[in-house]
Amino acid sequence: MKLATIRIDGTTRAVKLDGDTLVDLGYDDLRAWLAAGSPTAPADAGTYALEAADFAPVVPNPSKIICVGHNYKNHIQEMGRELPSYPTLFPKFADTLLGANDPIVKPAETDALDWEVELVIVIGKEVRHARGADAEAAIAGFTVMNDVSVRDWQFRTIEWTQGKIWDSSTPVGPFVTTPEDVGGVRPALEVKTTVDGQVMQQDNTGTLLFDPVFLVEYISTMITLRPGDLIATGTPAGVGHARDPKVYLVGGEAVVTEIEGLGACTNQVVKEA
Amino acid sequence: MKLATIRIDGTTRAVKLDGDTLVDLGYDDLRAWLAAGSPTAPADAGTYALEAADFAPVVPNPSKIICVGHNYKNHIQEMGRELPSYPTLFPKFADTLLGANDPIVKPAETDALDWEVELVIVIGKEVRHARGADAEAAIAGFTVMNDVSVRDWQFRTIEWTQGKIWDSSTPVGPFVTTPEDVGGVRPALEVKTTVDGQVMQQDNTGTLLFDPVFLVEYISTMITLRPGDLIATGTPAGVGHARDPKVYLVGGEAVVTEIEGLGACTNQVVKEA
Repeated sequence: MKLATIRIDGTTRAVKLDGDTLVDLGYDDLRAWLAAGSPTAPADAGTYALEAADFAPVVPNPSKIICVGHNYKNHIQEMGRELPSYPTLFPKFADTLLGANDPIVKPAETDALDWEVELVIVIGKEVRHARGADAEAAIAGFTVMNDVSVRDWQFRTIEWTQGKIWDSSTPVGPFVTTPEDVGGVRPALEVKTTVDGQVMQQDNTGTLLFDPVFLVEYISTMITLRPGDLIATGTPAGVGHARDPKVYLVGGEAVVTEIEGLGACTNQVVKEA
Repeated sequence: MKLATIRIDGTTRAVKLDGDTLVDLGYDDLRAWLAAGSPTAPADAGTYALEAADFAPVVPNPSKIICVGHNYKNHIQEMGRELPSYPTLFPKFADTLLGANDPIVKPAETDALDWEVELVIVIGKEVRHARGADAEAAIAGFTVMNDVSVRDWQFRTIEWTQGKIWDSSTPVGPFVTTPEDVGGVRPALEVKTTVDGQVMQQDNTGTLLFDPVFLVEYISTMITLRPGDLIATGTPAGVGHARDPKVYLVGGEAVVTEIEGLGACTNQVVKEA
């Protein structure tokens, strides 16, 4: 099953995909629908044409967004680091998110805007100290994020936060795909970033050092995970900052971050007005 | 003026202090009241006795909590670091907060639980790219936080997030005090931590490298700040982790984090059951 949150007439609606139609699930967004226990669509549910859909962030208002750094072996090596014993965690906030096809506005304050394709876990149940089957059951599905990063600000200090939380910088979507459609809760899916058609990142989520179930276990040891919370699982090799010479987004590019079976975020980069 | 969010009959209410009485402001919490434009209390407002108040986190549900590291000269030096050019930022989440007098439960997973008294800015207006008078006007008031830190997890990786976001770990309150009651938006107030009556931290917010107005300007350059958002401005010297020998909270201690004119968080540390 594929789920989304779409924009309709100045508000949003949670929907599920049925052929080329989006069926209204009866809630404003997927967080509300997940929190209600993922009920089936009403018998008289409204529908919308897929081709006209304006995708909001899959969850527009998560209570927390926790991102993992250093999780693909190739990316760790390109950044010159050793394989870690623990996941490295950093935040985003709800205000940081974009819809899957929204333009990425390059802030005037940076000349080092970069891409990072990521597999994202969408939490479906409230859990704390989840282990094993409970952690697996807490995963409602997966989606795609382009963890757009402001590298000059990211490396101003030892904490990456200020390079990762820029307003309306981070596409996430278009769909939440449930685990049974991608081979379970530890899916092995091709991930790819292209910039103006050139392949920049390519790897497989089967090579994650810390898999989705482990991450739910690890993070829920610290803090309650709630329906709609997002965990971004890290990015593979090929970011612009690690290239020689470095490559950054300057405006005008078309960036596509895609994961097999989940879909793609397709974003035009535009300069801030 | 002093404002708070208190727990009443399984819900919360936004209140203002009037003598030894708390006057109901007509909203569930200070975030909702600030977002509504800080209206005056209804003429027939209910009241509650201050002495019976059960303080919730001053804002139980901020859209973002951004904390600053390395902001008092003495603390930077005790951690062996140079004076920074930029503030170091890290997150907390709403689930991380405690009321001002709630017990701090030491997680079973750590033996390195530490204190950090902090002056907190409470945002009153939605701002982006705020400068000068707009940044000053965005500050609704100030409160006290004990930025309780799980040091062993904090230093597992180069990012501090996993030492800073533990569930229900971080007291914040009891009151939001408006700027005119503390000498304005760059207040010079004594800050202090005591553990079982022994003074552990003592400094003055007038010695902050990055003052509250600068922090609103800096952070709003990146991301929209919204009513009820919290910015914790960093901690002075004297944390347990920097002592020789190191001192950590093991359970049983009474920790008081206090700021002149704002009040105190008074918390008993208890071991996880």
